[in-house]
Amino acid sequence: MELWYTEKQTKHYGITAQIRETLHTETTDFQDMAMLDTYEWGRMLVLDGCVMTTDRDEFVYHEMIAHVALSAHPNPERVLVVGGGDGGVVREVIKHGTVKRAVLAEIDGRVIDVSRKYLPQIAAGLDDPRVDVQVIDGIAHVKDNPETYDVIIVDSTDPVGPAVGLFARDFYESIRRALRPDGLFVAQTESPFLTGDLISRVYGDIASIFPLTRLYLASIPTYPSGLWSFTVGSKRHDPARIADAQRAAGLVTRYYTPELHAAAFSLPRFVQELVDTATGRQG
Amino acid sequence: MELWYTEKQTKHYGITAQIRETLHTETTDFQDMAMLDTYEWGRMLVLDGCVMTTDRDEFVYHEMIAHVALSAHPNPERVLVVGGGDGGVVREVIKHGTVKRAVLAEIDGRVIDVSRKYLPQIAAGLDDPRVDVQVIDGIAHVKDNPETYDVIIVDSTDPVGPAVGLFARDFYESIRRALRPDGLFVAQTESPFLTGDLISRVYGDIASIFPLTRLYLASIPTYPSGLWSFTVGSKRHDPARIADAQRAAGLVTRYYTPELHAAAFSLPRFVQELVDTATGRQG
Repeated sequence: MELWYTEKQTKHYGITAQIRETLHTETTDFQDMAMLDTYEWGRMLVLDGCVMTTDRDEFVYHEMIAHVALSAHPNPERVLVVGGGDGGVVREVIKHGTVKRAVLAEIDGRVIDVSRKYLPQIAAGLDDPRVDVQVIDGIAHVKDNPETYDVIIVDSTDPVGPAVGLFARDFYESIRRALRPDGLFVAQTESPFLTGDLISRVYGDIASIFPLTRLYLASIPTYPSGLWSFTVGSKRHDPARIADAQRAAGLVTRYYTPELHAAAFSLPRFVQELVDTATGRQG
Repeated sequence: MELWYTEKQTKHYGITAQIRETLHTETTDFQDMAMLDTYEWGRMLVLDGCVMTTDRDEFVYHEMIAHVALSAHPNPERVLVVGGGDGGVVREVIKHGTVKRAVLAEIDGRVIDVSRKYLPQIAAGLDDPRVDVQVIDGIAHVKDNPETYDVIIVDSTDPVGPAVGLFARDFYESIRRALRPDGLFVAQTESPFLTGDLISRVYGDIASIFPLTRLYLASIPTYPSGLWSFTVGSKRHDPARIADAQRAAGLVTRYYTPELHAAAFSLPRFVQELVDTATGRQG
């Protein structure tokens, strides 16, 4: 018997992966969760029918959402990760020796528990003494902690269900207030090929709040279209520039490099046009 | 009734796309060919069970295989495209005003016929007076035409069936002889995520023949893993450098930009390691 997991990434298109074993399924207070063991990608965490991470390609997402923002800041000491219960982002965050405290604000504690059990290499950072794992609403936490963080990373699911509020203009405004005067934040902002409208809307919202807004890309095979965008809002530091070359060069990574940091901001023309549309610039 | 085309890109993983209509199927002298009309990607040309091109994302592949090599050459006048019967590559090649003659050497004339009929926007370049469409064996043509071309583009299918010879060291040696003294060539070289061994082998072969060898990447959603590699072998000009800034800046494109030309050569660390492995360099 062959078992295949098929995810419709759009109404008419998807990916399909052969399953060795279904390790866990559960309906939590917030979402449907499954842990699958696939032949091609290793273990795969699925939330509400969307691949969140896999053993084999998780390094791209986690490195690229963490190291660009942290390397652009000269001295990131306090970092907040909103979402990211699998632990992959904080694992990368604490590779920066400057970090004194990384708060993980995950609304769904079951994601943390199941990731600890089935994705130990991804969840490895959760037990670091600098990491403060809190099962809380990230939106409320951001509101309640003004001028607290150097870097905020929004590691959300897709903009449906529990993550809708993480793509709202109000939330970006709260983030601005929760950041210190030279802070910056990054959010995953979906696929340029499939959700260009979302990218334009979010980019425009962030650009109306932050003096510096930039978008960059990374290739993640198990995410829709394989090309993923990240949007940075920054109060002072240019996100495309590395602030501490020595720290960036010392990161042990499989995808991120200092050279790629800058290159990831060079956008294909159709993506640049999504950004220009958002800010009313002409291409 | 719903019809879905599912392509196993590896033994255990694939993509699936809902079909509006199967426009054409045929077994040619060389391969199985199908033209599908999909909801998500528009029309889709499938050869031997692999997506070759689709209306919606064809621009990435065709622009990126053509414009990097041509923009790196100061005066590309004579260009050879091996394969590429759909016409997408020559459509891009003739955007360079320097080009006087572009030979398309496609072994399977039926690909040309069916593309003309069902992919008119992709096949548009085939009727340009500078384009010489020849239904011939590209390998033999390359052997028989020493010191003829400024740029050679190998737009092959995957390294099975009729395209096996297009991934062989002998072929790259013939290409070196078919190029003029400052010529360069580019070949599509598959996915770094899924066929790293092939990339290392091919890169090593090309680097043993050409003084300058470089690899660059582009994001193509309907190709396996969504991330695709191209390898350039060059006799004199650095492939990562644009030789004629005005010409490159004047190209009407949707993916390629002069800034992206350079950035596409900034490789994720695991891809750089595939290249370093090939040439015996330490990372």
